[in-house]
Order: sequence, then structure tokens, then C-alpha cells
Amino acid sequence: MTGPGSEIERLIELMAKLPGLGPRSARRAALALVKRRERLLLPLAQAMAEVAERVALCEVCGHVATGPRCGICTDARRDATRLCVVEDVADLWALERAGVFKGRYHVLGGTLSALDGVTPESLRIPELAARVRAEGVVEVILAVGATMDGQTTAHVVADYLEGTGAEVTSLAKGVPVGGELDYLDDGTISAALSARKAF
Amino acid sequence: MTGPGSEIERLIELMAKLPGLGPRSARRAALALVKRRERLLLPLAQAMAEVAERVALCEVCGHVATGPRCGICTDARRDATRLCVVEDVADLWALERAGVFKGRYHVLGGTLSALDGVTPESLRIPELAARVRAEGVVEVILAVGATMDGQTTAHVVADYLEGTGAEVTSLAKGVPVGGELDYLDDGTISAALSARKAF
Repeated sequence: MTGPGSEIERLIELMAKLPGLGPRSARRAALALVKRRERLLLPLAQAMAEVAERVALCEVCGHVATGPRCGICTDARRDATRLCVVEDVADLWALERAGVFKGRYHVLGGTLSALDGVTPESLRIPELAARVRAEGVVEVILAVGATMDGQTTAHVVADYLEGTGAEVTSLAKGVPVGGELDYLDDGTISAALSARKAF
Repeated sequence: MTGPGSEIERLIELMAKLPGLGPRSARRAALALVKRRERLLLPLAQAMAEVAERVALCEVCGHVATGPRCGICTDARRDATRLCVVEDVADLWALERAGVFKGRYHVLGGTLSALDGVTPESLRIPELAARVRAEGVVEVILAVGATMDGQTTAHVVADYLEGTGAEVTSLAKGVPVGGELDYLDDGTISAALSARKAF
């Protein structure tokens, strides 16, 4: 055994599967764990075991939850008549950090992709339509990425929501706050121009 | 609870302490873990617990080991008269991947730094000198980084080894294999020039 040793190799192999870590950074991370056994390795193993035991996805909206329903879906102060459709839990967190949306969410868990076999069913889009009908939702905000895949998905979601009576809206496109025109792409500039408002 | 939830937050906080992961990539990694509970989260928690239980640092050389001594120190086929001094276990692995060194190692675990309170004692440099004397080592190869800190450390190690009778050598400095002169820094070019050899 001249290499890292089988336990460490297994750890490195698994760490390398995390988004943002490649083989080299996985090796560095694994070594940092061995060196900081008490302060990092043991707490992290414990935190992972706890998350594995207690955390799952909310059966209503797809957010992470410690019970069958998440903290937002069980919070009576959140407006149940407005739903925000996001691609991913990370997008939900970004919206929550902004702290301006007081409604509830529907996490798709990705974008439609015929190539990768991602269907409306696997993104729970039919469930979204059923939820909009059942809960008397008045507005569905499509807060998906301004990408090709995000926009395709938004169109399909809008189609599914037709006839539910809910108003379907989407995030404004335009110049980001702090953005300089010189650094923006043509698509953003033309979107901002065509959506111009009275000053 | 509108945020990620305390278990997830704790996991994100710990993941963000790993080298190479910041707060944003730690969030992405934690979400990837929740989504891939069976295939990634549970195996990783298990692998970490196993490493925590079974892996420590070799008491002779500082490499990772599953017993008091590592696989290299207990391998009778490795030449015990030649020691390679490296800064970190990752450097040891890099040398092992090259597969040309058949001696043993001494892992310093860092470089000397008066500012950070890293002393020769905390890098086990006196132990290295004692080991060289006790084991009849004939050559110590200083395979530390060609950085300011690495070279300072190399000089101090060489001082400690004075009088042990062992020859102290260091890695050659020069043009890396595949390197183009145009892209090399001045220091490398002048080192390569002054160490030029008959063709």
C-alpha cells in the first residue's frame, strides 16, 4: 500500500462527486479532514448522518424539510394564493435571502430536457397545476433562469396552468442593479430597452 | 423557519470550511447531498466515520496510516537509507504517482512561518534529524516547493541535518516537461540557465 490507503481513497472518490470539487480538490479536502479530525471530520460525519436521517424534500413544494412538509408550507403567515416557481432549492434560498416574497413556492428540481429525459412529470408540473386549482392560487410567478432551458420550461409550465384561472407572471428582465451597460450582453440590453418604463 | 433549516445550515457551515469550497459552493454541495441521499450522502457519512475511526498520521513519517505506522514505513522493500522531505501528504502522493522514488518520506506538514507560529518543532524537524541519525540515512532529498517559504524551510532543515553525515540534496529547478519558454517566469528561466548541462 503506497497510495493514499483504501479508506482515504474511498473518501476522495466520494468527495470528487460533489459539485465544485474535482479529483485534486477532493484530495486536498480529504487531507484537511484527516488533519482536522476533531474539529471538522467528526462534526461533518455527524452532520451528514443527521441530514440523512432527518431531512427530505417537502411533499408539497419540493423544498428541503425535516417533516413531510417544509417550514414555508406550514407557515400560516405565508400567502398561499401566490406561488413562485423556481428551478432549484438554491434559487428558493436566493429569493428568501432577498426577503421580499411572502408567498409559497414550487420547486421544479431542474429544467425540461428531452435529451436528458426530463419530462413535465419528473418536474412535477402536473402536480403544480393540480395544486393551483386545489388551493385557489391567484398568481403563479415563473422565477426560472433567463436561459434557453429555463424559458422553455417556463412556456410549458404556462401551458399547463392555462384554464386554472391563475395569473401567470415572470420576473422582469433588465439591467441588474449595479450593472454597467458596457459589460452587459446584447440580449439583456435589448430586453431592458423593450421593457423600458416612464422615468 | 424560512431558511435552509438548522440541520442543513450546520452541514453547509461545515462544508464551507473545506479547502476549495466557499459559502455558495457549500450550499450547492449540501443540496446535491440531500438530493442524492442513497448514492452520495449516506456513503459519504459512512466513509468519513470510517476515516475518523481508522485513519491517523504515521508516527514515523507523518503520512496517513491505518495503524501506528504507514504502508511505506512498514514496507521492507522501500529503501530506508533515502528520505524525501515533503511539505504535505499531497506532495507525497504526487511523488508516489510519478513512481520513481523508492525510499521513504518525512512529511513536515507545512512550511516554517514565524508569523503563524510555525516552528521547527511543530514541523518535527528535530525528529527528522534524530531519525536520520538513528536509521543510518545516507541521503535526504528536500522536495519542498520552489517558493519563498519552501526554500526558507529547506535551509532550516539542512541546518538541522548538519553533522548527521547524510548528504542533503534538493529537486532540480528548471524548465518543466512540456513547458514553453515564452510562458515561464524569469526565475525559472534563470535557474534553468545557470543549471544548464552538456547536451
